[in-house]
Amino acid sequence: MSSDTPRPPADPRYAERVRASFERQPFMRTLGAAIVHLAPGEFAVELPFDAALTQQHGFLHGGAIASGLDVACGYAAFTLMPADSGVLTVEFKVNFLAPARGERFRFDGRVRRAGRTVTFVEADARAVADGRERTVATMQATMMTVLGRDDVRH
Amino acid sequence: MSSDTPRPPADPRYAERVRASFERQPFMRTLGAAIVHLAPGEFAVELPFDAALTQQHGFLHGGAIASGLDVACGYAAFTLMPADSGVLTVEFKVNFLAPARGERFRFDGRVRRAGRTVTFVEADARAVADGRERTVATMQATMMTVLGRDDVRH
Amino acid sequence: MSSDTPRPPADPRYAERVRASFERQPFMRTLGAAIVHLAPGEFAVELPFDAALTQQHGFLHGGAIASGLDVACGYAAFTLMPADSGVLTVEFKVNFLAPARGERFRFDGRVRRAGRTVTFVEADARAVADGRERTVATMQATMMTVLGRDDVRH
Amino acid sequence: MSSDTPRPPADPRYAERVRASFERQPFMRTLGAAIVHLAPGEFAVELPFDAALTQQHGFLHGGAIASGLDVACGYAAFTLMPADSGVLTVEFKVNFLAPARGERFRFDGRVRRAGRTVTFVEADARAVADGRERTVATMQATMMTVLGRDDVRH
Repeated sequence: MSSDTPRPPADPRYAERVRASFERQPFMRTLGAAIVHLAPGEFAVELPFDAALTQQHGFLHGGAIASGLDVACGYAAFTLMPADSGVLTVEFKVNFLAPARGERFRFDGRVRRAGRTVTFVEADARAVADGRERTVATMQATMMTVLGRDDVRH
Repeated sequence: MSSDTPRPPADPRYAERVRASFERQPFMRTLGAAIVHLAPGEFAVELPFDAALTQQHGFLHGGAIASGLDVACGYAAFTLMPADSGVLTVEFKVNFLAPARGERFRFDGRVRRAGRTVTFVEADARAVADGRERTVATMQATMMTVLGRDDVRH
Repeated sequence: MSSDTPRPPADPRYAERVRASFERQPFMRTLGAAIVHLAPGEFAVELPFDAALTQQHGFLHGGAIASGLDVACGYAAFTLMPADSGVLTVEFKVNFLAPARGERFRFDGRVRRAGRTVTFVEADARAVADGRERTVATMQATMMTVLGRDDVRH
Repeated sequence: MSSDTPRPPADPRYAERVRASFERQPFMRTLGAAIVHLAPGEFAVELPFDAALTQQHGFLHGGAIASGLDVACGYAAFTLMPADSGVLTVEFKVNFLAPARGERFRFDGRVRRAGRTVTFVEADARAVADGRERTVATMQATMMTVLGRDDVRH
């Protein structure tokens, strides 16, 4: 894919803002998600394997995969937004490529185009098993900047 | 939307098969999901409000919404599949329409076209608050029939 | 699908505005598209069969189907927008349900949620053959209102 | 994005097969599309600017963009399919990133995962203006292998 360089963050304190928002999402604790990468236009989380998040074959459930990808996309977009803004998920699509079998799962989001109102983000989900990574799903998402209120919806 | 009548179920015992598969998904227990409707080509689940599934404003997290929609679509498709088959989520898209504020959430999946290999399903997510329903998100999904193995992936 | 009533049009002269915009799109003439329905939140076009729009089996090409659906969604959204605005396609997804074989093709767009900035629209594509209609594809699209300039991009 | 290496083509004469199929699509002539790249798992076409494909501002119409992307994805998938197969577009999503202004437009498709039945493909649309390229849209598509008949639908 082409690399369209994202603009620099409008808010120099973007990292604290993103971390604080992430910490306030109870669903992230339910998933066991931890931030593993944070940079302008980029955000990644990891989930350890947890039987509570699986389907009947012990693979990570598609809904949990979508959740990890959504968070990766939403916060990658949020890194580039102004200090007094919130981020809203407008839509996303997930294509599932392989069974999500592994000891842990990593979700990497990267902004491809940041507009004033609408930001386009892509993310990959990878399963790590026996030291090997495999892409299991991919997301393309539209995120919206909501000015003047701290209204993170995703 | 036009109503394209789904074919009758290939498996007369589809209801038991679908319920048994649903019961074996630990993630459904994590979400607190319960089946509220099951018919050929149709499947619905409900989640009660649970703070563990929210983002910071107390709304249902977008990932939890996608999870409920995925399950609604996957099992709606599964009702029409042969006895010895499994269902795989190929892809889905979610559009978010309104904040998911409510006491409970309902996810209704309905098959629009069931093919031999690929089934197209739509689902709506509704929030129920103070006795009023509001559509908060909608999904369009492609599900795949996997013959000869019981391999439900979503 | 649930019916979420769209708001009344902000511009009482929406019909002229939509027709004038449609007339200025050369690609609509290339497709042979004609408006067959126009109401607040709704827009439909028809294409007669034209060999120039087909793939090798004489069916309407998937790209032409997507084009008809995009126009149906874009102008359905545009009916509800203010007088001095333009409409931009943010994204769309198409699911293909059946081969597009027919004498003519109809594309019906309907707004499901009109927001201040972002509008969610659905459309169906139908083929008419021997007096019978068949749904061949379906679209879900996000359209954006661009204020202060007449900038229709789709 | 991660690079998941596609499998080698099942048909050593894939290039002739793909070119012959492309030549039989009248809609490609209507668009003025020409093949500019063809390799296992990869396919690209170019369109010169043509006023007949524009919207009212002289930009390439969103439907024409989707058509170019669909063809890039479909034939990228088709390169890896067996000799006696056809390719069907199951679904695609397009995100629009920038106005499609330019002298010519290039659509590059690349397979990310080729399965026995279902293939996942990505494509980018780029506008070339004054010697500079800009990504204007991106597609993620699911293509299906149809064995035993030459049934290319997209």
